Amino acid sequence: MKKLKNDTLLKALLKQPTEYTPVWMMRQAGRYLPEYNKTRARAGDFLSLCKNPDFATEVTMQPLERYSLDAAILFSDILTIPDAMGLGLYFAEGEGPKFERPLREEKEIRSLTAPDPAVHLKYVMDAVSQIRKTLDNQVPLIGFSGSPFTLACYMIEGRGGTDFRQIKTMLYKRPDLLHHILNITAQSVTDYLNAQIESGAQAVMIFDTWGGVLSHSAYQEFSLQYMKQILAGLKREHDGERIPSVVFTKGGGLWLESIAESGCDALGLDWTINIAEARNRVGHKVALQGNLDPAVLFSTPEIIATEVEKILKDYGSGSGHVFNLGHGISQFTPPESALALIDAVHSLSKKYHS
Amino acid sequence: MKKLKNDTLLKALLKQPTEYTPVWMMRQAGRYLPEYNKTRARAGDFLSLCKNPDFATEVTMQPLERYSLDAAILFSDILTIPDAMGLGLYFAEGEGPKFERPLREEKEIRSLTAPDPAVHLKYVMDAVSQIRKTLDNQVPLIGFSGSPFTLACYMIEGRGGTDFRQIKTMLYKRPDLLHHILNITAQSVTDYLNAQIESGAQAVMIFDTWGGVLSHSAYQEFSLQYMKQILAGLKREHDGERIPSVVFTKGGGLWLESIAESGCDALGLDWTINIAEARNRVGHKVALQGNLDPAVLFSTPEIIATEVEKILKDYGSGSGHVFNLGHGISQFTPPESALALIDAVHSLSKKYHS
Repeated sequence: MKKLKNDTLLKALLKQPTEYTPVWMMRQAGRYLPEYNKTRARAGDFLSLCKNPDFATEVTMQPLERYSLDAAILFSDILTIPDAMGLGLYFAEGEGPKFERPLREEKEIRSLTAPDPAVHLKYVMDAVSQIRKTLDNQVPLIGFSGSPFTLACYMIEGRGGTDFRQIKTMLYKRPDLLHHILNITAQSVTDYLNAQIESGAQAVMIFDTWGGVLSHSAYQEFSLQYMKQILAGLKREHDGERIPSVVFTKGGGLWLESIAESGCDALGLDWTINIAEARNRVGHKVALQGNLDPAVLFSTPEIIATEVEKILKDYGSGSGHVFNLGHGISQFTPPESALALIDAVHSLSKKYHS
Repeated sequence: MKKLKNDTLLKALLKQPTEYTPVWMMRQAGRYLPEYNKTRARAGDFLSLCKNPDFATEVTMQPLERYSLDAAILFSDILTIPDAMGLGLYFAEGEGPKFERPLREEKEIRSLTAPDPAVHLKYVMDAVSQIRKTLDNQVPLIGFSGSPFTLACYMIEGRGGTDFRQIKTMLYKRPDLLHHILNITAQSVTDYLNAQIESGAQAVMIFDTWGGVLSHSAYQEFSLQYMKQILAGLKREHDGERIPSVVFTKGGGLWLESIAESGCDALGLDWTINIAEARNRVGHKVALQGNLDPAVLFSTPEIIATEVEKILKDYGSGSGHVFNLGHGISQFTPPESALALIDAVHSLSKKYHS
């Protein structure tokens, strides 16, 4: 395999020296880009966009054509696994994802099986291969999955944006059932991420979007435990290259120490924690990825640069920092703001790497 | 004034010895109680329930008739202040509160004034006096307000449950305007809580429901700063009795040290933090209130007792703990679960107070 032209992201995730702080944005291929909306309109709907490798490649590449990002991230949905399990993923117009057959009955739960990624999620692997080809080793490609707990939220609630009543009732009343779901889902995520790695993903990230709604002890038992299980089963190398892993629990700032012990290489941070404090608490163990409030991108290039500088300064000198937003970029972001962010990170970070 | 028959709550908030851990529940007068729903139906709608002191007294008393709670909390809405400012509070059927005239234009913002609680919020003061009379010194009455930042979220967004795009755009782009709104709102909250104290509230609580959506530095500047301003202006005594204050920032677990320095007597905790860790970090300064996940109440009396015991044990021996949920009780809670909770706290906590 040819060598990566820009491996700054991979180095930073492994805490190796770099010349500047690499940057990418969660949801960087998204609705704030007019070209994304055009492709989506051609695809018909969101699921068709995800399931067609040509379209997925096209939208993955779009932000890289506009901006000098240091990574591409596979364009896909976090709910591909439960969809492959047969729960019937669909998107109602103007609403988030839903499942036709949410998990409620013990019988359905006991008959849940892990999908074979080579069969049921072949469209994702095809997209990964095709994106790698198109990227032509410019920057690394990040693969990803939702965390078992986050997937289970959708699988049990049947949709996002709920009060988590169904899953939490199960958690407190029938923890055995929830553990069963999480076990099968953790196995599925492990297989899925390993298949992405074999297809060409050069780093992987686990999005634990909903772990932060749990109590401190429930988080350990029902979310972190299963992410540890995945990390223990992940391929650490492919084609002679280390595959770094990132765990991001939104709202997990209180639990950084235990997440840093999970076996991941890097920790995603949301914007509620001061990155200086995070580095102080866990930076000797893992790299840190984050953590600008995405709402800063509603301001001006000057204010964006000021807020970027604050985070760079708070992180301080040395490697081990990947700049990112603390959450996905909002669909209401002016594309010029993303340009201002990326330019600011690149130009302002050099002095911290000497 | 006659002496309180049960002053366990006030003592615990001031870290004085008690025989057991007092307990009350956020939103204890609410939709999970059939008698509440009956009164609400008689009142016609939610606002009429809040604005009529007879109805407000009736629903405030309902949970106390069912359960041996250690406190009553004024039944009201957190949006009474912006309503009194003229923003036009209304409740659309099946939706949360909304404002007819959200704050967007600089001219409107500059003409905002603090309402006189004796005039514009007289219905709240009448409710406080009437509840105190009806309580007949059985247990103390807690008064409350939303925090300036939380009120500003509703005032600027025009409703709850948003992505906070409007207020955060203002925060990063026009911080001067947001500070202006927060200054006037902080003055309004100070006047409002002092008027509640003069009308008979024996403790006060500031609900910072949305402070947790801010970055660590924005939290200090746009939420905590204004709560400090309020606490500095609050009457600390009334009728010869100390009036304890509680600050609750949902999602504020990372910032406990700075909240504990704000001048409050007690800190509200949501369920994401281990109360042992919270006590370790700030328990030498302030009392702690919390922090059971309200979803535990969807389980069984046995599981509720187990989870209550965990929190009591984590807090450990000695005073300074007020048991509560980590968030308002859900409308889907079986009333028997609240009974199991309160009984468990009372019976299991005695051994930690000897």
